[in-house]
Amino acid sequence: MKLFNDLADFSVAEIDDLLTLARRLDEHPEPRALAGRVLALLFLSPSLRTLSSFQAAMIRLGGGAFVISPDMSIHGLESRYGIVMDGVAAEHIREAVPVIASYGDAIGIRAFAERTDLERDLADTQFAEFRTLVDKPLINMESAINHPCQALADWKTMDELGVPRQGGKFVLSWAYHPRALPLAVPTAAVHMACHRGMDVTVLRPEGFALPDSIMSKARKAAESSGGSLRESTDRREAMEGAHVIYAKSWSSTQHYGDRLGDEKARRELTDWCVDEPWFEPAREDCRFMHCLPVRRGVVVADRILDGPRSVVIQEARNRMVAQMAVVYRMLRGD
Amino acid sequence: MKLFNDLADFSVAEIDDLLTLARRLDEHPEPRALAGRVLALLFLSPSLRTLSSFQAAMIRLGGGAFVISPDMSIHGLESRYGIVMDGVAAEHIREAVPVIASYGDAIGIRAFAERTDLERDLADTQFAEFRTLVDKPLINMESAINHPCQALADWKTMDELGVPRQGGKFVLSWAYHPRALPLAVPTAAVHMACHRGMDVTVLRPEGFALPDSIMSKARKAAESSGGSLRESTDRREAMEGAHVIYAKSWSSTQHYGDRLGDEKARRELTDWCVDEPWFEPAREDCRFMHCLPVRRGVVVADRILDGPRSVVIQEARNRMVAQMAVVYRMLRGD
Amino acid sequence: MKLFNDLADFSVAEIDDLLTLARRLDEHPEPRALAGRVLALLFLSPSLRTLSSFQAAMIRLGGGAFVISPDMSIHGLESRYGIVMDGVAAEHIREAVPVIASYGDAIGIRAFAERTDLERDLADTQFAEFRTLVDKPLINMESAINHPCQALADWKTMDELGVPRQGGKFVLSWAYHPRALPLAVPTAAVHMACHRGMDVTVLRPEGFALPDSIMSKARKAAESSGGSLRESTDRREAMEGAHVIYAKSWSSTQHYGDRLGDEKARRELTDWCVDEPWFEPAREDCRFMHCLPVRRGVVVADRILDGPRSVVIQEARNRMVAQMAVVYRMLRGD
Repeated sequence: MKLFNDLADFSVAEIDDLLTLARRLDEHPEPRALAGRVLALLFLSPSLRTLSSFQAAMIRLGGGAFVISPDMSIHGLESRYGIVMDGVAAEHIREAVPVIASYGDAIGIRAFAERTDLERDLADTQFAEFRTLVDKPLINMESAINHPCQALADWKTMDELGVPRQGGKFVLSWAYHPRALPLAVPTAAVHMACHRGMDVTVLRPEGFALPDSIMSKARKAAESSGGSLRESTDRREAMEGAHVIYAKSWSSTQHYGDRLGDEKARRELTDWCVDEPWFEPAREDCRFMHCLPVRRGVVVADRILDGPRSVVIQEARNRMVAQMAVVYRMLRGD
Repeated sequence: MKLFNDLADFSVAEIDDLLTLARRLDEHPEPRALAGRVLALLFLSPSLRTLSSFQAAMIRLGGGAFVISPDMSIHGLESRYGIVMDGVAAEHIREAVPVIASYGDAIGIRAFAERTDLERDLADTQFAEFRTLVDKPLINMESAINHPCQALADWKTMDELGVPRQGGKFVLSWAYHPRALPLAVPTAAVHMACHRGMDVTVLRPEGFALPDSIMSKARKAAESSGGSLRESTDRREAMEGAHVIYAKSWSSTQHYGDRLGDEKARRELTDWCVDEPWFEPAREDCRFMHCLPVRRGVVVADRILDGPRSVVIQEARNRMVAQMAVVYRMLRGD
Repeated sequence: MKLFNDLADFSVAEIDDLLTLARRLDEHPEPRALAGRVLALLFLSPSLRTLSSFQAAMIRLGGGAFVISPDMSIHGLESRYGIVMDGVAAEHIREAVPVIASYGDAIGIRAFAERTDLERDLADTQFAEFRTLVDKPLINMESAINHPCQALADWKTMDELGVPRQGGKFVLSWAYHPRALPLAVPTAAVHMACHRGMDVTVLRPEGFALPDSIMSKARKAAESSGGSLRESTDRREAMEGAHVIYAKSWSSTQHYGDRLGDEKARRELTDWCVDEPWFEPAREDCRFMHCLPVRRGVVVADRILDGPRSVVIQEARNRMVAQMAVVYRMLRGD
């Protein structure tokens, strides 16, 4: 495996194969598998789970990782091309990225979400530029429009919980958040659930529809896996018979890059905080999923997060386990 | 071992056993002992020795550690319960702590010292909350009221120096510092010396007595180990025949959480800076101990720190060696 | 090897021996060689390549590293002696350095460039003080006046490129930069090229001559290796027949520590930006070298950095490979 950038690049059989490997490595540790192997981790925006789970994954397999992150006083990294660098930034990504990659056997990159130009972000332009700078196996640790590690972990979590693939009902619900957040997680989640063959509903207020290109990519996946995709603004109808609600806030795509417009659009939507009444039309054992970090009392009520519906810690742990399979496959090839 | 939170949880025989293991691992390295094992390290307040020594300990045993610290832009961690998180903090410790623990085979946590409510800190309320969030072996890397890793390292240091247990005279002395510091180290040190069976004197100015609950816990340990505990405000009398002076500044418990009151109480106490004349009534070979970091010329004179009495570097190195035994016992069980 | 502080401490045969080991470890990994061994890394000024490459080097050899850096809230480290520490700094390097060293089998230190007193920096006074505080093998990860890891990597890079030792023409050229930079890299580079037996020219504007002591040390190395050293302010003449141009900005030594004087001296020198016309009198395959980070459009034109002349990524990767040999030799002795 040379690139882990998008779950869409992998067939259901290939994903099952990765998850089988993940389970094997979790149950039967191989602390010598990646001895002497190095994963380079470049964060251009902050992280807790990704930062921890990749380091832990490498140690468990007998290798190691090093981290370059925005917390470090690395003089700032310039990413614009053709610029005269006489300002604050002392290094350009055209040097920094290949250098960091050259110290690793593989590299993971977390991009920063630009959120100024929707078309540019939908094309994942920045991450595509990174790809041209790296000749090592490359892991997308979250880009403007994707988060394949989260998607793989979420798929695994639903498998473990016995949430059915065919006929499983998955609701991706927008939730309130004080800030306009990126599209990466909802994009990855809606595609993942469709690719898994589930019946997927995107529940969101007016003005917060996901972009067409995201919806049609997910719909195509649903079609080939025997699932379905639809949208709704009606909470009650959307939650009918649901196995899973996956909550996540995202920017209004009508006001993308326009902070004030987005703020105005969401101002009245503070009741989009997932709480027990939401589950009334759902299956009794309907689960609550979220990629974390989550704002308590804002995105979801405490009683949901602290109650039996929540599987958020399991999802987070599965980040590490799924990523063990990814790096194992990348660095050993078997 | 599931919990390393308080040296009081261990008998003298159990401590001797840990120190024997520590010495063995130091003299006969076992670089495969913890292959593939991960120690999660969560710092909620800054650190140098603890940060370095736990990472080094894990590498020496063939495993590894990852670090989450307040230096990282992890959006701030909320710790209050029942709050609507619409401010700066984007993640609650109720998620962050179990997630971080889920990536490790054990977790070490350094809490932040709240220092607003003495009763709350004496009960180590915050650390007790962390305990409920973790189902992995847990190490107290300093809490509001304890520092068992420091205590174990100090015990080991005195063993190495031949400082007697029975009949060894240990003076814990308050020292001047421009800021009101936590009670964790003096609490751990006074108990450790009593538990070791020593004759212990707490030397401190009026207004800086240690709280009753701390003193009575230490006194109980002294009684069962054949030692003794008393207090003094008279430097000369306290230092009579001392084997060890252990210097540390701490808050005035009369003004706990009241920065101005504390400042006023300590203002006239700048002569509580350990210097050679202090040692006149002590044993000729009386040692100077301190947990570091230490302010030169404020807590202790340069000539003491740079002279033969000082064993502070040995204490610091013993942090790593003692912690090797703790993680070895936790993660291997033998 | 107890100290890696200056390439001048090693004969050409010893350097060849190190580079042979480096190549061997790169081509035939030894992921068990340093099992359980710890490299302590102390950064007193920021870093990207050094930080990453030493960690990667240790992982590749089966050991590990921990990092203490100025990004961490470690309360600030005091370095002045005899001072009363009642200000911000809570720890003195006289404690911090030996403690950090005590956790490692070897220690690497990146000093901060003081740049106030030229004589003090030329004597590498600060790094010499660090040496007295450490009783472990010590690596200079860049000091006020040296950067032996960079020099070793650059030597290796030229070997790989087939740049001849005897008769190889090496131009160290000053380049424009908005800030007054340290002397460490140009000092290390000019000596390295002379020590390698090359014909070396220091190309620089008036007012930016390297100090006499640096030039005479390099000249001595050239004499004993069969090379030569001269200075020039004439770009065309300096570049005649050059195999390599090594670009680097540095402070005006006439205005050392005088920021405004230096700024005035360099203000008119923005045309010292390496670009294709510079290469006209050089060999057709003349290479561009730089230690990175480099400011595009300021120190060097994009088309050079992105073109076939540039070997900066290879130089950076060789940092890791060269350092593997250094730590291997230090920690195994064979």
